[in-house]
Amino acid sequence: MTGVRPDWIAVDWGTSNLRAWAMTEAGEPLAEARSDRGMGRLRREDFEGALRDIIGDWLGGGRMPVLICGMAGARQGWAEAGYARVPGPPLAKGLTPAPSGPDLDVRIVPGLAQDDPPDVMRGEETQVAGFLALNPGWDGVLCLPGTHSKWVRLSAGEVVGFRSFMTGELYAAIAAHTVLRHSLAGEGWDEGAFAAALTEGMARPEALASRLFAIRAESLLTALSPAAARARLSGLLIGAEIQAARGWWLGERVALIGTGRLAGHYRAALAMQGVDAALTDDTAVTLAGLQAARREQTGERGT
Amino acid sequence: MTGVRPDWIAVDWGTSNLRAWAMTEAGEPLAEARSDRGMGRLRREDFEGALRDIIGDWLGGGRMPVLICGMAGARQGWAEAGYARVPGPPLAKGLTPAPSGPDLDVRIVPGLAQDDPPDVMRGEETQVAGFLALNPGWDGVLCLPGTHSKWVRLSAGEVVGFRSFMTGELYAAIAAHTVLRHSLAGEGWDEGAFAAALTEGMARPEALASRLFAIRAESLLTALSPAAARARLSGLLIGAEIQAARGWWLGERVALIGTGRLAGHYRAALAMQGVDAALTDDTAVTLAGLQAARREQTGERGT
Repeated sequence: MTGVRPDWIAVDWGTSNLRAWAMTEAGEPLAEARSDRGMGRLRREDFEGALRDIIGDWLGGGRMPVLICGMAGARQGWAEAGYARVPGPPLAKGLTPAPSGPDLDVRIVPGLAQDDPPDVMRGEETQVAGFLALNPGWDGVLCLPGTHSKWVRLSAGEVVGFRSFMTGELYAAIAAHTVLRHSLAGEGWDEGAFAAALTEGMARPEALASRLFAIRAESLLTALSPAAARARLSGLLIGAEIQAARGWWLGERVALIGTGRLAGHYRAALAMQGVDAALTDDTAVTLAGLQAARREQTGERGT
Repeated sequence: MTGVRPDWIAVDWGTSNLRAWAMTEAGEPLAEARSDRGMGRLRREDFEGALRDIIGDWLGGGRMPVLICGMAGARQGWAEAGYARVPGPPLAKGLTPAPSGPDLDVRIVPGLAQDDPPDVMRGEETQVAGFLALNPGWDGVLCLPGTHSKWVRLSAGEVVGFRSFMTGELYAAIAAHTVLRHSLAGEGWDEGAFAAALTEGMARPEALASRLFAIRAESLLTALSPAAARARLSGLLIGAEIQAARGWWLGERVALIGTGRLAGHYRAALAMQGVDAALTDDTAVTLAGLQAARREQTGERGT
């Protein structure tokens, strides 16, 4: 018995992780719980149990509203939550109910889709909504580094367009599933190698496959350090993304959403291009976004 | 008892596969054997047994010379065979003996290394030597598509320089270990999608991570066919390589070494740039290369 009695529960359910917060009506987190049971390792019928395993202590006081963003709303998720189209507000109306026991009222936030070029997001729309809730009237470009990095153009409270880059997933697949795995093992980070590779990745992105093999060759021939090898892989990939996203940051107001090392790398990469991107914590914007969805939900109910 | 009594045995031992041929003194294959026990799945002490398992029928007539090219000579292989430096002939002298029972005389061909930019090959040097043996005096550029594609400049019987691209390994890692795996499953090939992606990969290689995610988005939004998705992934990656290798094929005499679909894709890609690259079978050049190494060995012995 923890004594935590939330007004509602906020949930961010990604491919790899599940996080839940016990929330007050005003949007303050009272407690947090998490597990590694991401969408990627669950069958549809396992979602409710996985959630109950971490929020069970907060239940018992009547039917509990639960708002979920992220991959739990994908086709392979708990309940498919569809996509709202851009241009439009980041949080479309129309939460999707997910089947559960009668003591839970589970709703999933829809993703966003763009027709041309084809693109989708699921989870980031809630972060964008949260960023706008924390920064009312903000116009400019948001960059959300991650497994599938997003660049999002905002104007007048709406998402005008966005672009996804598989940069983080490429890093992970190359590091774990190519011959480079022998060169990357260990710890550490070589800032100079990152900066040089970033410049190289921007200048000659077509040479990626060759520069990657050169990392392996150099570690065989001259014992290149794993710290330099890792920084070089990251710099080559992020450099190509920064180059491709040039139209998104050049002369624009840019804000970064993220935490930790990856967001720092993007910040450094943008700073090398003369862009001073403010960094906003991703958990803060996720909670603000789910709180905005909750306000819409209760507002709808009240009318 | 097969009745096959070779003069010597030729072996191509890669990361994934092992192939052996019973050879006459003149370099004709009498029989072939193969297994899937590539270097990647063997401990050092397992190599001899893996080889005996497939060549056992050919032994019994005295001490048998065995010449091996490929990854069996890597640091994690049967015996590390070192690297000869370029510029220089593709087959350097100095075969590395591998420990074995007294009825075998096992020697491994060294790889080739380049200092600037750092690069290595192991196995392809034998194919290059074989190509030169079959085409004496040939000057130009060889392209060897594969897991780690190689572009090799030949002049006056020597390797002047070379460049490796991790293109094949990137394709495999992305197809198996990213979200694209959901979009690629199945059979078939879309030639038009390949050509379009090749052009796109050459023109905007920096957009790779974005174009990859668009494949996933398009299969979610418009049910893009797996045949088109696979062709697009291949075209984007090969397009970037062809663009980066521009200095290797533009205005040059180019020959391709390979068989099957992958070599066909490279041939089509080069043809789109106006380069008519002749295609030579990779097994033929491997055997010709090992025969050249065998001639050097017996020649050395004779002096």
